[in-house]
Formats: sequence, structure tokens, C-alpha cells
Amino acid sequence: MSNGRNFRELLEGKWDEGKFLCVGLDSDITKIPKAAEKEDTRTTIVGFNRAIVDATKDIVCAYKPNSAFYESHGDQGIAALRETIMYIIENAPGVAVILDAKRGDIENTNEQYARAAFEYLQADAVTVQPYAGGEALQPFLKRSDKGVIVWCRASNNGAGEFQDLLVDGQPLYKHVAQRVATTWDKNGNCAVVVGGTYPKELGEVRAIIGDMPILVPGIGTQAGSLEKTIKNGLDSRKKGLIVNAARSIIFASREADFAEVARAKTQELHDAITKAL
Amino acid sequence: MSNGRNFRELLEGKWDEGKFLCVGLDSDITKIPKAAEKEDTRTTIVGFNRAIVDATKDIVCAYKPNSAFYESHGDQGIAALRETIMYIIENAPGVAVILDAKRGDIENTNEQYARAAFEYLQADAVTVQPYAGGEALQPFLKRSDKGVIVWCRASNNGAGEFQDLLVDGQPLYKHVAQRVATTWDKNGNCAVVVGGTYPKELGEVRAIIGDMPILVPGIGTQAGSLEKTIKNGLDSRKKGLIVNAARSIIFASREADFAEVARAKTQELHDAITKAL
Repeated sequence: MSNGRNFRELLEGKWDEGKFLCVGLDSDITKIPKAAEKEDTRTTIVGFNRAIVDATKDIVCAYKPNSAFYESHGDQGIAALRETIMYIIENAPGVAVILDAKRGDIENTNEQYARAAFEYLQADAVTVQPYAGGEALQPFLKRSDKGVIVWCRASNNGAGEFQDLLVDGQPLYKHVAQRVATTWDKNGNCAVVVGGTYPKELGEVRAIIGDMPILVPGIGTQAGSLEKTIKNGLDSRKKGLIVNAARSIIFASREADFAEVARAKTQELHDAITKAL
Repeated sequence: MSNGRNFRELLEGKWDEGKFLCVGLDSDITKIPKAAEKEDTRTTIVGFNRAIVDATKDIVCAYKPNSAFYESHGDQGIAALRETIMYIIENAPGVAVILDAKRGDIENTNEQYARAAFEYLQADAVTVQPYAGGEALQPFLKRSDKGVIVWCRASNNGAGEFQDLLVDGQPLYKHVAQRVATTWDKNGNCAVVVGGTYPKELGEVRAIIGDMPILVPGIGTQAGSLEKTIKNGLDSRKKGLIVNAARSIIFASREADFAEVARAKTQELHDAITKAL
């Protein structure tokens, strides 16, 4: 079952090196530079990802391929996703791979989703939906070597439609954070997602969950404030953050120099994080 | 973009024929009878599904392949899922195909999930997560030819962990139903999922959403009460229900007679629904 990797250990290793940045591999084929085009969809996506990984792997703590951008290409896309993860495991072995898939269903279905994420794709962690509760998520939660990253506060403008509804005087997303921290995290493998577009909420979630890792998307294109994210998101050890940037790094240049420019953008964000620490 | 099919029209056509049953294609390869085994995973799954479809297509209103059971087999599983849907469209053209995938992310990611469901897989409808709100779901909602089936009340034991939390004195799942009915359904293409294991909640949701379709899983293996489901779930026209059974039909026999037995079980459930109407 296990491939010998442990999500939390990988993260802690990179945090010890002062690395908090995660590169989101939202590898939309319509934005991949002409210079990176290969014979077909699968090889183009994998080739692009390999170039991004080679250019950035010594600066980051994680990669986060977004499943949707692969699924939209069907079986070829899924094969490209697996090949990408295999490449990272082989060539950047200390860097964690987070499958961003926002999965969630009832338990017997989640068994199959966990198998897809952890056995077929060999991801170190997966993002999941809280809606059906912790009982349904057992097939993920029981995998103590794998990270289970619960969508707590989304980064989109309309995130508050349900997440801000008040239950006993506090918003739903705080109840989600509480349940994860107090009940779901029996194996110490949980984390939560809080959008970088909501720095106040990020601080409130941190106050609830202790030193649990937080994945923060929405830095970069979605214009979350990096400084506030760091200030409000760090745990008591000045660690605990996975700061994701995707489009603003991987598509910073649409020319043949895309990998080089991606590295420069990654370094720039890494330096900004280091400064804010 | 469109393949000329319309989810709601397909459903209405079958309801007019008195057909309310949906067969869930949760085609777990470890449960597929030895007699149906073919040369590889893809051909075994597709062959099994074809036999089930051939045996039941004149009795049902929809098929509901559960994406997880295909994703766990990687690219081969995804290819099998597409082939299955193509087979249904070709050989049971009046029967709707619901992709049960419980997808949901922010808008630019949902664009890709919608593409996967509707373009690559050619599904007529997809189940989605409510957690990030209606704004995030626009890429699904704007496809007026396609059904967008929102997970409202899950069928699992632990569904109430968040779904029963009280907001302004009423449980969260009712707020979800209200938002779908009053705000999200501008194109008349929405539906909701309510587990057959919760007949009381089903009646409450029906009272909120008017004549919107309800997909009811949890009949059969999960032991939801069929009679109560029909009584509480029908709309004002005595229509509006998609009653799903999966394991109790497709794996009713694990021998060479599996398709024949699946037909008998489907007919039995159909007759029970007709009687309850």
C-alpha cells in the first residue's frame, strides 16, 4: 500500500530548510507555450510539467497538480497526471505532491477515490470536501502516511454563501476547522485549505487548529496578500504553511523562456516569504 | 459544445412512460463475475456495463456511473467510463446519463471539471458539491442542456455532522435546497441529491424546491425505505424522482446469470415504485 513516503515528514523536512512555497501545476494546455508543444496532449503536458519541476524543485516544499486540468483531457490527461507525479517522486524526492481534487462522497465511494489518489496516482496528499462529515472521509483519514487536506475556507468571491452562515454564533468554516482539529485528526495527517484571499479568516482558523498545516491558495493571480498570509497563518513554531501559487508562476512567460521565468518568479515569492517570516 | 441531448427533456420523457428507476454503475471490478472477465480492466468493465445496460434499458430513466470506481483504475478506468457512456447514448438513446462525481472547486477549476464531464465524457448531468457556493458553480450551471445535481442531504450515517447544523433555526441542508431553488436554478437545469435513508428530510426538501428533480440514492443496499421515498419525494405532478439502486441490482448475482438477475431486480424495484405511486 505505502510507497514509503510520508506527507507530514516531507513537509517538515522542507520547512526546516525554510521552504514554504508550493507550485500549482494547473497546466492548462491552451496556455502552454508553443515552444513546449510536443507530439500529443499527454507528452505536451508532461514535458511542460517536467520543465517547471526541473526549474523550481530546489526552492519549493510541494507541488500541487490540479486534477481538473488533467481530467478535462480524459484518459490521456490522467496518464499525464500520473507521469507528472512519478517524475516529481523520482527527480525531486523530498518535495511533497498534493493532488488538488476536492474529492468527497460516502465511505464506500471514498475508498475508491483514496485508491485513485494514493495507489494509482501515488500522491502524498489530497484535498477533500467536508460536506458529508468525517465518517464518510475515513478511507482518506485512515491513511496515516498520506495528507488529508480539508477544504475549510475557499478562496473564491462567493465562498461565504454557505461558509459564512452562522451556527451557534460562528461561521460554518470555523466549525469545519474545529471538527478537523478535535475529531478527525486522530492520525496527525490532517490539514486545511484556507484561501489567501481571506487573511482575517486565515488567522481565525490558525487560532482553532493549533500547529496543523494550512494550504493557502489564492496567492498570485487571485491577489491574496502574501505578507498578511504569513503573519496570520504561521503556527507556533513559525512553520505550518504551504503557500500555493500556480498561474502566476507557471504561465509567467508564454515564450520559450517559460521555465527560466517560472524559476525567477518562484525565487521572488520565496524571498518575499522569507522576508515576511 | 452540445451533443443535442437535454437532460431534463430525457427525464421528462421517461417519467411520462412511468419510469423512475436509475441503475448505479458502481462497477467495482473486484465484484464483477468471473464469467464477465475479459482480457483487461477496461474491456472487463465496459463489457460488464454493456450487459447490464442491455438487460435493463427499457425499464429505467437513467444510468448513474460512479466516477470513483473508474478513477481507481487510472487512465484505463477513465477510458472505460467514456466507452460506457458512449454505449448508453448509442444503444439506449432516451435514457439519461448522470455522472456521479460530486465535483466542486472554484470557478476556473470548475470550467475544467465541466469540460471533463460534458465534453470528454458526454454525460447529461453531473453531481456537484455545494460548499463553495453558486458563484463557483457557474461553469456547470450555465450549461442549460446539462443537469446540475447538487449534493443536498447525503445518504451516509454521519451526514448530519455539518448538514444538520442549525442556521437561523433550520438545518444547513435546507439552506442548500433553498439557495438552489431560489438563486442557482436560473436555467431550469438544477436538481438535488437527498439520500433515501432520510425520508423525512426528503419530504422537507421537496416542500422547499417545488417540482425540481430529486436524485435519491441509498435505495437497496443502504436500506432506504422505497415506499416512504416515493410518498415524500414525488413532486406536485407525481413525477420528479430519480430513484437510484446500484449494488443491489448490478451485483445481485455474482454468477454468469448476472445480467438476467439484474433485469429481474430492476423489474422488481420498478414494480414496487409503480405500486407505491
